[in-house]
Amino acid sequence: MTGKVKIATIGGGSSYTPELMEGFIKRYAELPIGEIWLVDVKAGAEKQAIVGQMAQRMWDATPYDVQIHTTLNREEALKDADFVTTQFRVGQLDARVKDERIPFSYGLLGQETNGAGGMFKAFRTIPVILEIVEDMKRLCPDAWLINFTNPSGMVTEAVLRYGQWEKVIGLCNVPVVAKMGEAETLGVPQADLIYKFAGVNHFHWHQVADKKGRDLTPQLIDKLYEESSGLPKNIFDVPFYKEQLQQMNMIPCGYHRYYYRFEEMLNHGLKEYATVGTRAQQVKAIEHELFELYKDPHLDYKPKQLEQRGGAYYSDAACETIASIYANKNTEIVVSTRNNGAVLDLPADCAVEVTAYVGGAGARNVAFGPLPTAERGWLQMMKSMELLTIEAAITGDYGTALQAFISNPLVPSGETATRVMHELLIAHKAYLPQFANTITRLEKEGITVKDEIVRKM
Amino acid sequence: MTGKVKIATIGGGSSYTPELMEGFIKRYAELPIGEIWLVDVKAGAEKQAIVGQMAQRMWDATPYDVQIHTTLNREEALKDADFVTTQFRVGQLDARVKDERIPFSYGLLGQETNGAGGMFKAFRTIPVILEIVEDMKRLCPDAWLINFTNPSGMVTEAVLRYGQWEKVIGLCNVPVVAKMGEAETLGVPQADLIYKFAGVNHFHWHQVADKKGRDLTPQLIDKLYEESSGLPKNIFDVPFYKEQLQQMNMIPCGYHRYYYRFEEMLNHGLKEYATVGTRAQQVKAIEHELFELYKDPHLDYKPKQLEQRGGAYYSDAACETIASIYANKNTEIVVSTRNNGAVLDLPADCAVEVTAYVGGAGARNVAFGPLPTAERGWLQMMKSMELLTIEAAITGDYGTALQAFISNPLVPSGETATRVMHELLIAHKAYLPQFANTITRLEKEGITVKDEIVRKM
Amino acid sequence: MTGKVKIATIGGGSSYTPELMEGFIKRYAELPIGEIWLVDVKAGAEKQAIVGQMAQRMWDATPYDVQIHTTLNREEALKDADFVTTQFRVGQLDARVKDERIPFSYGLLGQETNGAGGMFKAFRTIPVILEIVEDMKRLCPDAWLINFTNPSGMVTEAVLRYGQWEKVIGLCNVPVVAKMGEAETLGVPQADLIYKFAGVNHFHWHQVADKKGRDLTPQLIDKLYEESSGLPKNIFDVPFYKEQLQQMNMIPCGYHRYYYRFEEMLNHGLKEYATVGTRAQQVKAIEHELFELYKDPHLDYKPKQLEQRGGAYYSDAACETIASIYANKNTEIVVSTRNNGAVLDLPADCAVEVTAYVGGAGARNVAFGPLPTAERGWLQMMKSMELLTIEAAITGDYGTALQAFISNPLVPSGETATRVMHELLIAHKAYLPQFANTITRLEKEGITVKDEIVRKM
Amino acid sequence: MTGKVKIATIGGGSSYTPELMEGFIKRYAELPIGEIWLVDVKAGAEKQAIVGQMAQRMWDATPYDVQIHTTLNREEALKDADFVTTQFRVGQLDARVKDERIPFSYGLLGQETNGAGGMFKAFRTIPVILEIVEDMKRLCPDAWLINFTNPSGMVTEAVLRYGQWEKVIGLCNVPVVAKMGEAETLGVPQADLIYKFAGVNHFHWHQVADKKGRDLTPQLIDKLYEESSGLPKNIFDVPFYKEQLQQMNMIPCGYHRYYYRFEEMLNHGLKEYATVGTRAQQVKAIEHELFELYKDPHLDYKPKQLEQRGGAYYSDAACETIASIYANKNTEIVVSTRNNGAVLDLPADCAVEVTAYVGGAGARNVAFGPLPTAERGWLQMMKSMELLTIEAAITGDYGTALQAFISNPLVPSGETATRVMHELLIAHKAYLPQFANTITRLEKEGITVKDEIVRKM
Repeated sequence: MTGKVKIATIGGGSSYTPELMEGFIKRYAELPIGEIWLVDVKAGAEKQAIVGQMAQRMWDATPYDVQIHTTLNREEALKDADFVTTQFRVGQLDARVKDERIPFSYGLLGQETNGAGGMFKAFRTIPVILEIVEDMKRLCPDAWLINFTNPSGMVTEAVLRYGQWEKVIGLCNVPVVAKMGEAETLGVPQADLIYKFAGVNHFHWHQVADKKGRDLTPQLIDKLYEESSGLPKNIFDVPFYKEQLQQMNMIPCGYHRYYYRFEEMLNHGLKEYATVGTRAQQVKAIEHELFELYKDPHLDYKPKQLEQRGGAYYSDAACETIASIYANKNTEIVVSTRNNGAVLDLPADCAVEVTAYVGGAGARNVAFGPLPTAERGWLQMMKSMELLTIEAAITGDYGTALQAFISNPLVPSGETATRVMHELLIAHKAYLPQFANTITRLEKEGITVKDEIVRKM
Repeated sequence: MTGKVKIATIGGGSSYTPELMEGFIKRYAELPIGEIWLVDVKAGAEKQAIVGQMAQRMWDATPYDVQIHTTLNREEALKDADFVTTQFRVGQLDARVKDERIPFSYGLLGQETNGAGGMFKAFRTIPVILEIVEDMKRLCPDAWLINFTNPSGMVTEAVLRYGQWEKVIGLCNVPVVAKMGEAETLGVPQADLIYKFAGVNHFHWHQVADKKGRDLTPQLIDKLYEESSGLPKNIFDVPFYKEQLQQMNMIPCGYHRYYYRFEEMLNHGLKEYATVGTRAQQVKAIEHELFELYKDPHLDYKPKQLEQRGGAYYSDAACETIASIYANKNTEIVVSTRNNGAVLDLPADCAVEVTAYVGGAGARNVAFGPLPTAERGWLQMMKSMELLTIEAAITGDYGTALQAFISNPLVPSGETATRVMHELLIAHKAYLPQFANTITRLEKEGITVKDEIVRKM
Repeated sequence: MTGKVKIATIGGGSSYTPELMEGFIKRYAELPIGEIWLVDVKAGAEKQAIVGQMAQRMWDATPYDVQIHTTLNREEALKDADFVTTQFRVGQLDARVKDERIPFSYGLLGQETNGAGGMFKAFRTIPVILEIVEDMKRLCPDAWLINFTNPSGMVTEAVLRYGQWEKVIGLCNVPVVAKMGEAETLGVPQADLIYKFAGVNHFHWHQVADKKGRDLTPQLIDKLYEESSGLPKNIFDVPFYKEQLQQMNMIPCGYHRYYYRFEEMLNHGLKEYATVGTRAQQVKAIEHELFELYKDPHLDYKPKQLEQRGGAYYSDAACETIASIYANKNTEIVVSTRNNGAVLDLPADCAVEVTAYVGGAGARNVAFGPLPTAERGWLQMMKSMELLTIEAAITGDYGTALQAFISNPLVPSGETATRVMHELLIAHKAYLPQFANTITRLEKEGITVKDEIVRKM
Repeated sequence: MTGKVKIATIGGGSSYTPELMEGFIKRYAELPIGEIWLVDVKAGAEKQAIVGQMAQRMWDATPYDVQIHTTLNREEALKDADFVTTQFRVGQLDARVKDERIPFSYGLLGQETNGAGGMFKAFRTIPVILEIVEDMKRLCPDAWLINFTNPSGMVTEAVLRYGQWEKVIGLCNVPVVAKMGEAETLGVPQADLIYKFAGVNHFHWHQVADKKGRDLTPQLIDKLYEESSGLPKNIFDVPFYKEQLQQMNMIPCGYHRYYYRFEEMLNHGLKEYATVGTRAQQVKAIEHELFELYKDPHLDYKPKQLEQRGGAYYSDAACETIASIYANKNTEIVVSTRNNGAVLDLPADCAVEVTAYVGGAGARNVAFGPLPTAERGWLQMMKSMELLTIEAAITGDYGTALQAFISNPLVPSGETATRVMHELLIAHKAYLPQFANTITRLEKEGITVKDEIVRKM
């Protein structure tokens, strides 16, 4: 880590890369980058070329001399890297379309990180991240792995537990966005609020206090309901039950809607499925548009349209984390990291998402103390599901996959769910070598995918 | 506890009482009973009279001089009792009909101890059991409370946690029946099998070994699937996924079907609801028939028909427990009791259902050790739900009830579930004084019960 | 907490008060104090008057308008205070002389915070701190209690556990001094080192890393032994066994010498006892000299001689903590606070001393993770001893006091230890009303204090 | 395990062997033994021959056809064994003499299983037991290892943790003797008492209740002090402090005297050392006498004199355990076994000594629940010390040995203790190959053994 910093970005062809560049540019003074290597797979090569040139233009518009390299050779990129960021998507957006449409075609929830679909994202991603870790052990053993590939918490857990790699931090934009929004809701500068988060990725809660330590959570709950006093803008923003929030005296994350308002979230998804297409299909369109923009040889800054993509501030959180580690800044960030007791109700060695002070030694988790009864049970169930999913992703064991599926609170167990699991296995065959035997068996049994659109992919 | 033993049975008018008598008669040599007091509420007085006379006839047909007393005065019965058994049902079978029909009327699972209905049984029962405990503190402070009122695990938990009463054991026939059936399936005398159970009431798993300690669980799993090789006798016996059982290498209890085959169990229930009526309605018919039999002044033994009632061996388990405590027998029984570390994955102070050696000091739990990942998560979730349900039962807090409801894996959260909760609150108004404020509010909002049959009750 | 800050300092007549003033003066910009109330008991009134005037002179020499009040009326001082600091010594230095000399007179270790003597300091102090907490509940319910009365960890534990007061932070100069010294030893600015502490007050370990997160502990251990390569300056600085430090890969605190080099520490103490007098006797002389200095009406700054007193940076740590809370600074400080999982190997609800980020909501503990085997056992033993000592301090139960004594690793159990305990009870009679019955019994048995000097006090 | 049972006894030349035979003979009906293989090392060959013939005579005097084999070839004995019992002593009694005399020669406690000496017994024994386990994996993978070689708890822990062998039970006569004596003290048949033990070997406590579950512990404590109302028979029987026992409301084991009355136990040992010789020296004389008796070709029963040897009922406990496993008897026995939560305050995976029901699947531990504060701390400290001792025994790491030594509550840390450790290393050189490097270094430094008697051995 002497001289200029080398960054390797796996999944470099992502439409998010300009946000990442913007984040790095903003922090150049404390994070003096020399070179950035964008790595992608062959299927992403075209996008990677576009975004790579765009990224170079962004740097060229600054006073800093930073070189962007694009490559399909991961080893070349990892060699002596100081930080490795991961934002890849195994199977690209088409895989996400399958994760969403196959469950919906049977009336089950199809969602990228939750429900049946989210588990398959883990099945595809975890073997790849573990390969990357093995490469890092050889090529850049002192580097930090900053992950923002979803499911970010499970990826972090897999890296810690099976990769035996400690220098990893998982990131998510959900806490960033929550903090910003709530400061606005409360009418208090964010710097004057004290936040405390605990849970796992996409399944955490938080409390907020003022700068004198006085709990503002009850007041925030009240304000949240004043705001949405009228009809909700759209059904997707279905409100939590106020009495539930008051009972826990915590603010859930947005993804909790799937668990606390399952019926409405499912119906909303089914409606989209039947009409405008699932989120992945919508995102494909947005992505297309973005890459059209990126092609513009005069564009040398992050275009506003990227914000519609979702995931805003994701890359920014990553850049802040990297700068905090590099410059030993002890910045307060919500990260996925080894628990170590910060969340009492989960095993000390598992990954959690908590408030931490991030510096040269990585994340120093703030001990949250015990969760209330309801949240404790939910979190323990979710962690079990995560551990089973990861184990199934590695072993390809059918029984373990089934246990993971049945443990998922968003998947009502029974024949329909099992059918959906089978179709997903078949649909993702190319990316699930660990499940080859099972897939062969299912194919022999004549299982085929029902959804027409997926069928044609 | 000198001289002859005094038994007080709360809910004495139950149709199970003859089984209880049979169990006591069989064990008279080691449990020399002097008097049995059957207590019931006014609504059960008629049944109690019938069954009380029947019980006296049963004893009169033996060489033992045992006096049956029937009373509506609980204090009189509890005074100086050695053992208090509880088999009461707050609101009688009609309440169960409501617990079942209201959820089904909205497509949700209605079941006596699981799902939306089961939680209301807890709401009605727990305040009453805590009153009984307070009476016991005054009237029979050395007595043991042997509970088989459902939800048996939550009742035990409430007695330990809120009643601060240590001398309590909760019982259930599920483990008894499982052991008997499996010995038959394996073709091995039950005495030559070594069982180990862990979990909570109606949500436990077990392993079985031969007398040399060799694990027979895999073999038992295989045999279970050979047996049901043909079509299942009825859909209710929907089999577990074999690969799931193999993955956990444990045998779930029957009630796990609701969690592991949710779809099929729900559909079966909905079908019954739409056709022959829910289980409670069927049981009402059986009960009527039983009481007609009991009226026969010549009947002085437990009639065979009682077995159809369900719950066979329930009372027998209770009698064996009482005899084991009285005679310090150290019998191996599966009981609900304070955990104390036997189930590592739950708090040490909560109630669990485990294999125990029962003697003069009560249950000595066999330490089970850690559960596998999937089962750990499920169990932790279920215990959370139990704790919330009990808390709501005591406080009548709406937010807590909502949290309990949403935490229940058999209740898909959202407006329908909330509506069902509201209708159940209204339907059980007479037995839910702790929720009076909420019920008044709901009534003002015009909430009424949709199900026609319940409406007319 | 609007307007100017009000500080109440219990034990205001302490010789440390000028250091406290210096700390506040240094931080006035971020901690705008309006008034400081020094409270003491009658026995300390004279010293309090001297130090109060001295304190006022110190402020008068600054541009800040701060009023020093001295009072014997604690209620007056606490009323509407923002911060309450505690630095009192029940029984003044004479009590410490007894704590030291009585054990030494029997060949046992006499020490202020460890061994037999330290436990009696707790017996005297804890009832008083709990009275203060009760006063605070009435008079300044929003104030923070910043304790640096020893035994600081046990005082914090008592306040949390029995006082049910959450807004408490215990402080100690040991970590401050260690960090400063080690930065020098390593030749690295302290800001470029990353420290992680875990344990309880006067019994903690730490690790240190460079700003890239690389563990410097092994290197620091090496350097520590290079330094003391010659003969140790004095036997008191008896070195730890290097191989022991290497095995744990942590740096113990100075007080660990009593546990890891018991023989040498005991012998050193016995030698002082037999010659120059115990530490308390030495400190009395230093204190006398200090107060002579303080009387000088021209002295308006902290005199250099205070540093000899021991406890340097103690008050500074307190001032920094207060400023961090007041200005929500999130400063990294090692504090005594509720564990909450930061030290996995101790109960979550007990007090620990750990690295924390201190801000408006108090201490946010950094989760340390599991301790190595040896340290885990020691720490668990010490926490047990602390809990027993506190319980005995509150109940005055003889058996509990005996258990605490026997649990203390520095007290070899048996008749001599018991005799020492009895003499200490008698010697401290005036400050141990909770043990009145036991003391009466011992006096009847004719137990008297052997040490001549104590006898004459 | 069909046909006749084969027993292999490692350390078969022990003077205890006749007691073992007596125990087997008594239980032949339920434990049909075919052959018993006594294994010993060359140094024990003569004794083994004597005791082997004696054992055969004992069986020949019964109607049972059991063949005694004596061999120096462990493999031959282990081949297809059903039960392996271990009662060997690495280095014979001379090693014990060294364990005792070397510490005493410096004024430290020398004792076989506690203090400095006990740790060296572990250092010598653990590598051997792990070799035996490796042999068992090859030669009798279905056998049970029933250990009564001391330190029995650490041996069990090592077998579980490092041997990865689950079928092990450690035994000790201390609980057996305590139960018998207390039944007499209380004047109640043992069968009518309910005992509950928890702790680790030679460091456990228990409670006793009557057959109605009423706690008799307070009454037993009272009676224990009535009994020893006169002067104690000998100083060795130094009583515990009554108030300490009342505070914990448990009965400690005899070895707790070393911890609770350290001063008196040390002084007693030092006096023996200076006069009649240490216990090992006394035992050598008794052993000599015993083997003279065993030579008598007419002796075919266990001679009364064996009881003086100490350790009475040790072998009997082992025979009862073996019979209980073989016949799946579910006998209640206090054993060393994997914790699994039975002792909440220790890790679930470590070895503990608890009340268990022993049957075909081994020990089913009774969950004890939480220990009181003082006992929790002591036990956690002792388990840490055990784990460190075992680790040092395996790795031969000097720093770990030092940590173990310093963690031992009976060893006051410092130069004297370190010197004693060094002398013990040198004295036991022949049996400590794992410490070869350290021993070489110490020899080069000129460390020699001070004690004259040890020097000449």
